[in-house]
Amino acid sequence: MAKVYTIHDIAIRLNISKSTVSRALRNHPDVSKETKQAVFDMAEKLNYQKNILASNLASKSTNLIGVVIPEIARQHFFAQALSGIQKVAKENGYIVMVCQSNEELQEEINQVRALVNSRVAGILISLSKETNSFGHLQEALDRNIPVVLFDRGTDQLEVSQITVDDYKGAFDITQHLIDQGYSNLAHLSGPMSLSISQKRYNGFIDALKNNGLNSAEAVVYQCDNLSLDAKEAVDRLLSMKKQPDAVFCMSDYMAIQVLKHLKDSGLKVPQDIAVAGFAGDPITELMEPQISTVEQPAFDIGVQAAKRLIMEVETEDKETLGFVNKVLPTKVISRSSTVK
Amino acid sequence: MAKVYTIHDIAIRLNISKSTVSRALRNHPDVSKETKQAVFDMAEKLNYQKNILASNLASKSTNLIGVVIPEIARQHFFAQALSGIQKVAKENGYIVMVCQSNEELQEEINQVRALVNSRVAGILISLSKETNSFGHLQEALDRNIPVVLFDRGTDQLEVSQITVDDYKGAFDITQHLIDQGYSNLAHLSGPMSLSISQKRYNGFIDALKNNGLNSAEAVVYQCDNLSLDAKEAVDRLLSMKKQPDAVFCMSDYMAIQVLKHLKDSGLKVPQDIAVAGFAGDPITELMEPQISTVEQPAFDIGVQAAKRLIMEVETEDKETLGFVNKVLPTKVISRSSTVK
Repeated sequence: MAKVYTIHDIAIRLNISKSTVSRALRNHPDVSKETKQAVFDMAEKLNYQKNILASNLASKSTNLIGVVIPEIARQHFFAQALSGIQKVAKENGYIVMVCQSNEELQEEINQVRALVNSRVAGILISLSKETNSFGHLQEALDRNIPVVLFDRGTDQLEVSQITVDDYKGAFDITQHLIDQGYSNLAHLSGPMSLSISQKRYNGFIDALKNNGLNSAEAVVYQCDNLSLDAKEAVDRLLSMKKQPDAVFCMSDYMAIQVLKHLKDSGLKVPQDIAVAGFAGDPITELMEPQISTVEQPAFDIGVQAAKRLIMEVETEDKETLGFVNKVLPTKVISRSSTVK
Repeated sequence: MAKVYTIHDIAIRLNISKSTVSRALRNHPDVSKETKQAVFDMAEKLNYQKNILASNLASKSTNLIGVVIPEIARQHFFAQALSGIQKVAKENGYIVMVCQSNEELQEEINQVRALVNSRVAGILISLSKETNSFGHLQEALDRNIPVVLFDRGTDQLEVSQITVDDYKGAFDITQHLIDQGYSNLAHLSGPMSLSISQKRYNGFIDALKNNGLNSAEAVVYQCDNLSLDAKEAVDRLLSMKKQPDAVFCMSDYMAIQVLKHLKDSGLKVPQDIAVAGFAGDPITELMEPQISTVEQPAFDIGVQAAKRLIMEVETEDKETLGFVNKVLPTKVISRSSTVK
């Protein structure tokens, strides 16, 4: 194997400091364009590759940002949030590596540890539905690796969190259904281990109460599997004595499936039963009828979470920086699946 | 910071070899259940975390598999392939880290280098549409890190490749359109820098020729942006003197958008114009009309690519193992968007 060159070799050859080389390679804005060019040229010439052994010894971390999300498949939200994360990371000279926990705590633990051992600069995480302990994240924090939660947070960990206003989003879309004249509302919720499920459920119930509707009798079907086969839920709704006239699903993915099964059962949406989702997935607009939903600023959550993480990575005064808890607004998108 | 324990510490305490500890921690099938349990218990007791510095010195690599894909967003195919990769990785004690190149060569280069520097055991990659040089992958190979290409391959690199039969899939769905009575076919292709675009285009053209249709006059609209705004393409098709009676899109994502714009323009699908896609995205089944497509074994590509990579990582005789070039079959799914 050829000799492996380090930052030190580049610094000596250009007669600049190692930290300048390091910042230039991360494309840091404080380094002049000319210096960056000189560093890049020399790095190219030496076939330099950031050496994790050397750079660990020097800086104790890399320019990697580790991201852990429950699943990539099916969820537009996470794909969009990742795009936001990646945009900010690129602008600041970081590389993003994504792990998928598959909604399993053990996978999440293994992945967080692998990221820690890869000496990531920081970790962005959206918790799995099983996550009820936080030792793995505490271990990262103990090793001075900042952790920022996004979308799915917890009040059991003192870290920065960027979430959306799930409660208000659910409240608002329930109010929208009531305003449209629906009075016998059902809710398909997610697993109650997730704080987003709890908040959306609470928003739904409080909107009913606020309008003098009987929240105790509201039909709530808890779907432990977020990617449920909606057929069972729909069959149950349709077999009820007093069939609901509207169903608010905790995710767009559920709503799309519910719509399909209602139509397959010969029902008209929204005439016989209205359907609303949550997330703002563009697919909802392609359905017939188009599905009403609650738009989340998915890309922006990614942007803000990444910006915050990088600030925590790069600060020299963590104490003063502290933590933030940011809740971004949601917006009801009213479409023909709920408007008669 | 607490003392960091290594595999050595676990091995000494249990009076077994370091390689047994290493294999137990990777959940290797050759290690007995009892030994694994003993190793896990001791690892827990020592708060052991695989130490990249120590383990690099010992084994020169980690239990990480790096995956580089063009984009996570929008493409069901990659999400499914990732699920297959993750399943196999988990069964074999590996952790998967995913990087998204955003179809940019420079990003892909940076990410492959970051993975190499993180001492991944191997790399699975689906090339970006810009990738026309392969030095970054050669660098990984030179450092003894196996690379397996999946879905988007190249004949310019001697590595194992797991792809699908894009040519035959395109040929077959074009034949299907001709069998349905369509004779003036258009094709929306992807960027020709991608071998999958070339193969799908060739399959389309050859099917026309094979049926005595004038392939020279066939309308081909090359979409350099895979996530094109289909409106432009549709407007162009509709403004033609001799309007095509069927359009075969190189991706389901394109087909969904084309369908929407055709309907918005007041045309009936398939009566006025038929629409077919490629990929087998489940969304195609939720559209009205349901969209005909070419199913790819996405999950299986991931499974096979990961199995092959792990075999190349773990073999002690790379020479004899050599490389494979596996082409998986595709299947036409005929639905109402092409059947009058």
